[in-house]
Amino acid sequence: MRILILMLLLPVLAFAAGESGANSQSTINVMPLPASVQMGPGKLKLDGSFAVTTTGYTDARLQAAVRRLQQRLEGRTGITLPQGVAPIGTAAVLKITVKQGGAAYPKLGDDESYALVIAGGGITLSANTMWGAMHGMETLLQLVSGDLEGYYFPLVTIQDKPRFPWRGLMIDVGRHFQPVDVITRNIDGLAAVKMNVFHWHLSEDQGFRIESKRYPKLQGMGSGGLYYTQEQVRDVVAYAADRGVRVIPEFDMPGHTTAWMAGYPELASAPGPYEVQTQWGVFDPTMDPTREETYQFLDGFIGEMAALFPDEYFHIGGDENNGKQWQANPRIQEFMRTHGYHTTAELQTYFNQRVLQIVQKHGKKMVGWDEILTPDLPRDAVVQSWRGYKSLDYAAREGYGTIWSTDYYLDHMGPAEYYYLSDPVPADSKLTGEQASHIVGGEVCAWGEFLSPENIDSRIWPRTAAAAERFWSPRAVNNMADMYRRLDAVSVWLEQDSTLHLSSTDKMLRQVSGTAELGPLGLLGKVASPEGVGVREQFYRQSPPGTQLVPTQQAPMVNVTDAVVPDPPYRRQFAALVDQLLGDAPKFAASSAELTQAFQQWRDMGPGFAAMAANAPLLQNASSRVLQLQKLGSTGLEALKYLQTGTTPPAEWSQAQITLITQAETPDASMLKLPWLRSYRELVLAAARVGEVKSTGAKEWKQKILDEATRQEPAQKYTW
Amino acid sequence: MRILILMLLLPVLAFAAGESGANSQSTINVMPLPASVQMGPGKLKLDGSFAVTTTGYTDARLQAAVRRLQQRLEGRTGITLPQGVAPIGTAAVLKITVKQGGAAYPKLGDDESYALVIAGGGITLSANTMWGAMHGMETLLQLVSGDLEGYYFPLVTIQDKPRFPWRGLMIDVGRHFQPVDVITRNIDGLAAVKMNVFHWHLSEDQGFRIESKRYPKLQGMGSGGLYYTQEQVRDVVAYAADRGVRVIPEFDMPGHTTAWMAGYPELASAPGPYEVQTQWGVFDPTMDPTREETYQFLDGFIGEMAALFPDEYFHIGGDENNGKQWQANPRIQEFMRTHGYHTTAELQTYFNQRVLQIVQKHGKKMVGWDEILTPDLPRDAVVQSWRGYKSLDYAAREGYGTIWSTDYYLDHMGPAEYYYLSDPVPADSKLTGEQASHIVGGEVCAWGEFLSPENIDSRIWPRTAAAAERFWSPRAVNNMADMYRRLDAVSVWLEQDSTLHLSSTDKMLRQVSGTAELGPLGLLGKVASPEGVGVREQFYRQSPPGTQLVPTQQAPMVNVTDAVVPDPPYRRQFAALVDQLLGDAPKFAASSAELTQAFQQWRDMGPGFAAMAANAPLLQNASSRVLQLQKLGSTGLEALKYLQTGTTPPAEWSQAQITLITQAETPDASMLKLPWLRSYRELVLAAARVGEVKSTGAKEWKQKILDEATRQEPAQKYTW
Repeated sequence: MRILILMLLLPVLAFAAGESGANSQSTINVMPLPASVQMGPGKLKLDGSFAVTTTGYTDARLQAAVRRLQQRLEGRTGITLPQGVAPIGTAAVLKITVKQGGAAYPKLGDDESYALVIAGGGITLSANTMWGAMHGMETLLQLVSGDLEGYYFPLVTIQDKPRFPWRGLMIDVGRHFQPVDVITRNIDGLAAVKMNVFHWHLSEDQGFRIESKRYPKLQGMGSGGLYYTQEQVRDVVAYAADRGVRVIPEFDMPGHTTAWMAGYPELASAPGPYEVQTQWGVFDPTMDPTREETYQFLDGFIGEMAALFPDEYFHIGGDENNGKQWQANPRIQEFMRTHGYHTTAELQTYFNQRVLQIVQKHGKKMVGWDEILTPDLPRDAVVQSWRGYKSLDYAAREGYGTIWSTDYYLDHMGPAEYYYLSDPVPADSKLTGEQASHIVGGEVCAWGEFLSPENIDSRIWPRTAAAAERFWSPRAVNNMADMYRRLDAVSVWLEQDSTLHLSSTDKMLRQVSGTAELGPLGLLGKVASPEGVGVREQFYRQSPPGTQLVPTQQAPMVNVTDAVVPDPPYRRQFAALVDQLLGDAPKFAASSAELTQAFQQWRDMGPGFAAMAANAPLLQNASSRVLQLQKLGSTGLEALKYLQTGTTPPAEWSQAQITLITQAETPDASMLKLPWLRSYRELVLAAARVGEVKSTGAKEWKQKILDEATRQEPAQKYTW
Repeated sequence: MRILILMLLLPVLAFAAGESGANSQSTINVMPLPASVQMGPGKLKLDGSFAVTTTGYTDARLQAAVRRLQQRLEGRTGITLPQGVAPIGTAAVLKITVKQGGAAYPKLGDDESYALVIAGGGITLSANTMWGAMHGMETLLQLVSGDLEGYYFPLVTIQDKPRFPWRGLMIDVGRHFQPVDVITRNIDGLAAVKMNVFHWHLSEDQGFRIESKRYPKLQGMGSGGLYYTQEQVRDVVAYAADRGVRVIPEFDMPGHTTAWMAGYPELASAPGPYEVQTQWGVFDPTMDPTREETYQFLDGFIGEMAALFPDEYFHIGGDENNGKQWQANPRIQEFMRTHGYHTTAELQTYFNQRVLQIVQKHGKKMVGWDEILTPDLPRDAVVQSWRGYKSLDYAAREGYGTIWSTDYYLDHMGPAEYYYLSDPVPADSKLTGEQASHIVGGEVCAWGEFLSPENIDSRIWPRTAAAAERFWSPRAVNNMADMYRRLDAVSVWLEQDSTLHLSSTDKMLRQVSGTAELGPLGLLGKVASPEGVGVREQFYRQSPPGTQLVPTQQAPMVNVTDAVVPDPPYRRQFAALVDQLLGDAPKFAASSAELTQAFQQWRDMGPGFAAMAANAPLLQNASSRVLQLQKLGSTGLEALKYLQTGTTPPAEWSQAQITLITQAETPDASMLKLPWLRSYRELVLAAARVGEVKSTGAKEWKQKILDEATRQEPAQKYTW
């Protein structure tokens, strides 16, 4: 599921890169943008009189949500607020009305709508359910504003409800375990952007991460001691439910199961013993679908897990069975002949059917990856699509609930705009309305090869907030500049409340360098981003044996590439500077000071970086990228000079710069990308052709240069 | 205990400010500096062959310590190491020998010595006890170095043992509760710098923070739900013991007990009802020392707690009883007359004696603050001294174990050097050797008025590491420059392993400003430090009613002053720049570029800061300090010009600058200090008298200016 997907993504990139959308700039910082917003003039001051009352249905969960709202408001404003729900009769600033008694646990299709009216006299939040009320509180929190008179809420009337009912995040804790606090703080993040599914990928070749009391060797021999106790799982499920988030466990089978076989080798289709896998890839160990004992085991196990997870859905994985163990086992081959199965895919269908019966026996509906979709799959199963629109649309046409995940693999390290623009039901979808209605939403996937508790938040956030808007807001909401403006705001709130994505880069760079004064490394940390998983694995596989770069589960994730963030704001900042400069032809004065300062910093960072690297070997594989950055700084200054003097540079200069850019785009041992090279390329090409400015109108000239830059991009390499 | 101490400190300041010490620069980054270090030439490469074996005594605790060592080594180097203790017979790189079986729990006076020999052929770590071995592992971790060939250990022979056996940190969780993860990560920090006592201040007027099963209204009505369960306490005690750290609970009595009385008003010396106190100060509620029921209650309670905490010492507080309830209660007055007590202090002695009997009955020795030292106190009690050397030395002369804490109040926000130079037994101590031997060590105190889980680490670290060296290393180790060099190194390791003190400032400033791009606020965050608790409380008390600045327990701690750190490295960096500049008379070229850049940044930060503050009211009370900083930038540029041109400025210029500095030193609503103003004053005075340079030798001139600067300091205000 890891490498293939990268290839599939490439054709989409041209689409992903542009800024498009009919939707205009919004004026509030709410993300996801509500379905309907009417701004009024004026504001409602926020002060120590902020009493909250509830009418209609209430319970301990709602009261706890109110207390969290108050604490988070206090954290944003420094104002001491009255705590808890005020007694009936209090003159409240915020009146919350929930119509129906809330279910103990959220389920697919629950009413999540709410109405929020902020008027001069106070705030009214109305919802049919607890979940809607909690969504409304998140909106309210994001509306807090400040001016010279203090904190306030803008006057606004919001009617809101989600576009899709299934809005999820998958975290793979199999490849690298993530402690409970990582899970809960990311559930906080989900709730903050109105997502409602946490998909917990609990077993993998590399680890079995949950306690089974019935089969204790699963975690006992399959986890290296890193697993969740059932008590912890119950706590996480309750924590999530209190925030309107469903928890769906995934136990991937029949492949991706090496860790099960460490304790129970009899489950496998080839003789053991087995050890937990520590490398990355697709491996042979596969459950034996021909033995009744396999199903007896799964009946016991799934029964135990079904009791632990109250959600009506249960994910059985089903992906990437390479069939090798089945082909090599004469008994299994004989079984296939007897049953008339010609391919291992057909045998897997048989296996899926058997597992389906077990899942149903324990009162659950089944979810699986694309591969489970075979003719006899019952219509209440849900298919999670990772192989593109063709698979997604096929499942929807067949009437299956489907979840869009193909474009949402976070480990490809794409920019937020890529996730944002990938729509489960795009405007040009060929599906009928009825068919499209089977697409229940999407899930962002955090695969675990290179996730540590230190950096996982920065891989998930803030990009997942952009996907959350795609899942929640109307399809027409797609103004990219406005999305990024709101993403920058929500990103700060997310970290304030729970996640660590804004702090982790500098923290990890201090660790990598062994110093608190980051200097040139801090600069590198701002302008670089990590290569995606496909590039990283491929490069590592080609690296000489014995190098530190061969990744295994045990390899510490303390390289610069582990610290820097995907889609750093610097990419957009630099693009804006270049855009302003080129738009200011023929003087090229706009943003010139800022670009000059940046280029000088790059040019001059070498000695400082070298001095740090001399004491910190972990920095040394970034040296080649830093050298390129230095050269890009020098060249950038030259390009500015050519532009501002109107002098056309020699042809050799231009060629040398394109070569340099190409080198800087090529993956190297640093595993670092410079994600603003597209804008840099525009600058260099503009300098190379500055003579044309006078013969063309400044505006036309700029477009011509941009077209030229796009043509020069090496299609298979220039991604993001 | 809060305000008084500030006054006591003042006379010491002149001593604290200087950099003195016969001890020369060390060449290793270990803190505390070991008792004996012999560096050899050469190095031992660290690579994937780093196998560890143990001989002599071993157990699960040692093996867990080895695994932590390996994980931390991996985090520092990115090298995948063999995990766990290797089988006997393995060719080990690190051989650990522990001579005696370890006790389950550490106690005062345990042998903590170790010997660490790093030779070309491998590493030998020998210790008599588990505690010594763990100290040696911390030393080993701090010795990791890097060069262009990779990571290595320098060859070295270390013999090490502590100077004092009691090396502690007190955390007050009564005034503000701190979650368990705050406690455990700070215990990690203690272990990293070889401290061995965590003093848990568990009850206060503002909160009762531990579960009592016998008296459940203590936490039920006294904590607002914020307390540690007994299970959590047992976990913390075990966690600490695994790291060689003792846990000593403190239940402050008979004063500081309002929170007890919320649930049990009958304990008080005046009729109830009582509510948990939410303000700061010394309050009236005091236990009734005349009723037998009080002692029956305490017998039950102390018995329950004594079983929970295995340490042989039990802290009963005893400080700051204002006596008012006792004076106002006729029955208590009658009791005093009957017993012949003339003062409430005498009555408190009676109370202490009764409590002492209870503590002893439950198998514990008593610890208390200065006030417990009265004639009948048994000699195995330990006195924690917070009222200066007079109290400390008196207790030691009387033969009591004594702990030095007077100068170690972190909330005064002094620089590390202040804590570093305050010696429990200074070189000029008048105590005999026998008397001095009763001083068992010291404790750093983190009082909780302005501590949040977000900023507590930055109040404790890295300054506590400097105190740790004072408690561990020989008295002669006191080279200030070398201390700070090593403190900077250990500070990074501390955060890597556990604490958050380096990340919290920017994280909190993002929260305060609501933006991830800190710009001028980031600059302010680097150059400013928080005012001490005394200044802060006094200023707040004088502020008009209704302002947001009146501090209570509920007030959110999200001001700039809560985010910035005491003793920011910028103070030293700026001092070094000024020092270099003045030392370069009469050209004044050295460091001129760096100072010019800094002054320009200050001068120009106003508009950017104002723009941020316009949307973030929490920033607005820092505006006046920013305005002063801007002016200091402009003036600094002028001072540079006067110096470099050798032009004596007009007298009005000099006077205006001194006025400006005085204003910038005066506490204001920002509660921010500019802790480098002493160096800035030197610069301005030098400019004012630049004409003298030629008539004096450059060196003599500089000294003259410095003396002049010192004389001009307003003695009662210029602290740190």
